[in-house]
Amino acid sequence: MNRRKLLKTAAGAAVASTAIAAPAIAQSAPALRWRLTTSFPKTLDTLYGACDMFAKAIADLSDQKFQISVYGPGEVVPAFQVFDAVANNTVEMGNSASYYYIGKDLAFAFGTAVPFGLNTRQMNAWLAYGGGLDVLNELYGTFGIYGVPFGNTTAQMGGWFRKEIKSLDDLKGLKFRVGGVAGQVLSRLGIVPQQIPPGDIYPALEKGTIDAAEWIGPYDDEKLGFLKVAPYYYYPGWWEGCANGFLYINSAKWAELPKLYQNMVTIAAGQVAADLTAKYDARNAAAIKRLVAAGAQLRPFSNDILDASFKATNELFAEVSAKNPKFKALYDSTIAFRNEQYQWHQVCEATYDNYMIRRIRA
Amino acid sequence: MNRRKLLKTAAGAAVASTAIAAPAIAQSAPALRWRLTTSFPKTLDTLYGACDMFAKAIADLSDQKFQISVYGPGEVVPAFQVFDAVANNTVEMGNSASYYYIGKDLAFAFGTAVPFGLNTRQMNAWLAYGGGLDVLNELYGTFGIYGVPFGNTTAQMGGWFRKEIKSLDDLKGLKFRVGGVAGQVLSRLGIVPQQIPPGDIYPALEKGTIDAAEWIGPYDDEKLGFLKVAPYYYYPGWWEGCANGFLYINSAKWAELPKLYQNMVTIAAGQVAADLTAKYDARNAAAIKRLVAAGAQLRPFSNDILDASFKATNELFAEVSAKNPKFKALYDSTIAFRNEQYQWHQVCEATYDNYMIRRIRA
Repeated sequence: MNRRKLLKTAAGAAVASTAIAAPAIAQSAPALRWRLTTSFPKTLDTLYGACDMFAKAIADLSDQKFQISVYGPGEVVPAFQVFDAVANNTVEMGNSASYYYIGKDLAFAFGTAVPFGLNTRQMNAWLAYGGGLDVLNELYGTFGIYGVPFGNTTAQMGGWFRKEIKSLDDLKGLKFRVGGVAGQVLSRLGIVPQQIPPGDIYPALEKGTIDAAEWIGPYDDEKLGFLKVAPYYYYPGWWEGCANGFLYINSAKWAELPKLYQNMVTIAAGQVAADLTAKYDARNAAAIKRLVAAGAQLRPFSNDILDASFKATNELFAEVSAKNPKFKALYDSTIAFRNEQYQWHQVCEATYDNYMIRRIRA
Repeated sequence: MNRRKLLKTAAGAAVASTAIAAPAIAQSAPALRWRLTTSFPKTLDTLYGACDMFAKAIADLSDQKFQISVYGPGEVVPAFQVFDAVANNTVEMGNSASYYYIGKDLAFAFGTAVPFGLNTRQMNAWLAYGGGLDVLNELYGTFGIYGVPFGNTTAQMGGWFRKEIKSLDDLKGLKFRVGGVAGQVLSRLGIVPQQIPPGDIYPALEKGTIDAAEWIGPYDDEKLGFLKVAPYYYYPGWWEGCANGFLYINSAKWAELPKLYQNMVTIAAGQVAADLTAKYDARNAAAIKRLVAAGAQLRPFSNDILDASFKATNELFAEVSAKNPKFKALYDSTIAFRNEQYQWHQVCEATYDNYMIRRIRA
């Protein structure tokens, strides 16, 4: 708590960087303090917790010499200014979702998820062994940022609806709290996308100002209580077959960081990222049971809705690709990788999973 | 190469431990050399490579002070004596598959995979957040070993068959190179399980001494060339919906290890484990394409075979549970976790994956 108070006290002063300058003499393990600001509030304890876990890992690996202080949205900068705060060196590092920054370039979407894109394991494979991370870092590099993958929330749900959505016609005029690329696709199907901060979603759904809202998945959604006012819980969130987070690091600060500390950041981020997915898998499975027991009505999106969304996605992406070479490079890479992955996935993983699902239902 | 020669030169001498003794005065980062022996040969470059990657990570995190030398099967001990070599402190650490040691207790199977068990992500979630690792470490602890998860090969294929297997009757008398728990289940269906070292499988298949052989998945299987003599490539390997590897550490050596180095081991193993799965996903997808192009005939196991195998598995596990409380504790934990996971998986992940598979086929 004192740290937060200190921060507020220092708020008027120049707080560009709290890093303790390394002495001119090369020192492989200097005392160092960095700041990490995240887009995710403490209430999203899985995502926020990954930042705490990372900071602890770095301290544990460096014998407490390299300390990272974690700040939530609004403590240093607002949630959606994390990328810029890192680029400007207001903080040395930040945790955010790449697709929050599609205003800069729609290509940013590929760092998190695109509609009908990769699933969680495919995303990890693409980033590490499909050239994905390299192409993304070329993009981030033009903003003075170096990105390290920081964990995946897994396939997300399609959101909470006040009424059942039985066909494509039911989407016309529907006010849906949904952001980013999904909003752009869905507007082609007649939906009116709404941008509403998390804290305002519940009253908007209750009053009927909006008809539906998507958030993340069972564990995170449960806390916002949408169930009471919009009980139809649709799946899958085809715009987020996975959602990958990033740790963004100021490129100049990264270059200055002793190699030993660079190794710690890379290795700890890899461990924290894997842990995040394990945590989501464990918690979501328990949460969906509680939600259904409390009255959530699970509904799959109909095939005509999925097919029309798939078509609209391909049309949008073809249009953007024709004009934006950075987008096209990432799109072509993602889609080629996705198609090859699903050709394999259908053989072994899907056959195994589908058999197990059939047995457990029986 | 010199390291290997040195090892052979020293082979007659006492080589119980090459660790440089830490001075009596507490020292958080002493110079230290440990040995890691793995069950997996260099030809399995994905698995062996994980050991090299781990050793490099530990060196990189410790400013080269903590060095780990990696040895393949036969260099220090044979492949299936890794666990005992660690328990006896012949080496400080080893990499192996828990189910190689079901001769000690069938409960060891749960550390790798059991028939109709967890998939890859579910295994990670169970180990970290389902209590799985704690229960496994109680078991390993009775042998003086501490285990750290070390990566998953993902769902494995069902193996290469000389002839098509169209129904349950085709299994009767079939000589199948398959090990462990799967062999015990399959023998209840009339199969005659065979234990053959990797290098002898190809000639045995060619001569017809055996009718079929399972190994791992497309990337690893491709190298052994089974395609030419047993072209029917069956899926899924329902006895390995995933296959988790372990890093085994001598408990006394672990207790002596400075906390700083313990942190490095835990965090680096987590990163290496996640990387292994990403590597398998990328490589298997490319390999299955090559195998099919070269003539591999993909075949799913028929439902009557899967159903009979599922039934035989449940019967075997109920029998063992009645006599073996350690097995029962791990079985009950695994199955409860699996059932909850698949109830969630069927909603979001499977619906998304199955839709994508349908689109990509179209």
